[in-house]
Amino acid sequence: MSIPEPTIKRLCKILSTLEILEQEGNSFTSSSKLEQISGFPSHTIRKDFSFLNNPGRTGSGYEISALKGAISQSLGLVGENRACVVGLGRLGSSLLEYPGFNNGNFKIVAGFDRSVNKIEMMDSTVELFPAYKLEEIILQKKIDIGIIAVPADVAVAVAQKMIDAGVRGILNFAPVRVVAPEGVVVQNVYAVDYLRFIASMINQR
Amino acid sequence: MSIPEPTIKRLCKILSTLEILEQEGNSFTSSSKLEQISGFPSHTIRKDFSFLNNPGRTGSGYEISALKGAISQSLGLVGENRACVVGLGRLGSSLLEYPGFNNGNFKIVAGFDRSVNKIEMMDSTVELFPAYKLEEIILQKKIDIGIIAVPADVAVAVAQKMIDAGVRGILNFAPVRVVAPEGVVVQNVYAVDYLRFIASMINQR
Repeated sequence: MSIPEPTIKRLCKILSTLEILEQEGNSFTSSSKLEQISGFPSHTIRKDFSFLNNPGRTGSGYEISALKGAISQSLGLVGENRACVVGLGRLGSSLLEYPGFNNGNFKIVAGFDRSVNKIEMMDSTVELFPAYKLEEIILQKKIDIGIIAVPADVAVAVAQKMIDAGVRGILNFAPVRVVAPEGVVVQNVYAVDYLRFIASMINQR
Repeated sequence: MSIPEPTIKRLCKILSTLEILEQEGNSFTSSSKLEQISGFPSHTIRKDFSFLNNPGRTGSGYEISALKGAISQSLGLVGENRACVVGLGRLGSSLLEYPGFNNGNFKIVAGFDRSVNKIEMMDSTVELFPAYKLEEIILQKKIDIGIIAVPADVAVAVAQKMIDAGVRGILNFAPVRVVAPEGVVVQNVYAVDYLRFIASMINQR
């Protein structure tokens, strides 16, 4: 059963929400509680859950740990995806150590930078390489997701190198658009969208 | 005329998309082109544009510069919102200099860290302060948006201090949930949601 893309997006966000509820000490939740936190309508959430095998529904609501497991399984988040970060400026080096990028399902196995000097000086638990080794290491370490944290003017070229070397997904933090070729999943993150939303909500009040 | 929240969210994202199309050398666009890039259905985009005064519709599609202006105006993104960053680790220090956070509508006017030593050593164009001055400086510099880049265990306390000092919006990058009290807009950013979406799309193929 193929899950529609918007449902996948929402389930990813709900999974994070469930982790946070669990950290806060909860064992059960409800679609209305999830609506309150995620902003997705509760009927949409319930419809999304119809794609799951056994979402942990009980008389006291959804059991969080069962629901988390059901979502992870349906989304195929059960193995480990290997990722690399390209561009080790402030943003890139923060992403190397970002806790969520090194949990059970993801592992950052390499970092790359154009500056050999930076690589030699940097203190990191992740193996670092000069940028010219990008394609070699992607192949060698079977990296399937590339994270781009280089300046805007080189981001598209870096993406192309990653794709040529065989990554299947790209998470782009550079403020340009990386277009996905057939068979590659691309997500472009623009942090300014969040800031604009906040400003708009404030300024309209 | 009050614009619904989901429309505001989409218009913020479309605004970024328009900026990128403009950088790529385009002067005109269409709702189907915007659907292709943003992922929002073209009929939803056209409905969202009905909230705008003069969205720049011409015989050759929407004129990008006019459409950008119409969105900015309708969203109240016309003045300048003043923001601060709390927590100057790798992520926080990258946010201080993030180009999108220092464009026409936003200005980062202060950075804060618990470590006085770090503040003294750091090289930044933004004025830096020790964390205990947070409330004083928010008032003094009329900061209305607080950006949180501290570790998870102190994020909620930092948010509360910001709110007490009078910020009206919070952008939280710490992996915990900051709950918005009445009158304050909060956006929690979890970069792992994007990575999960990519992995799910890859793993299901």
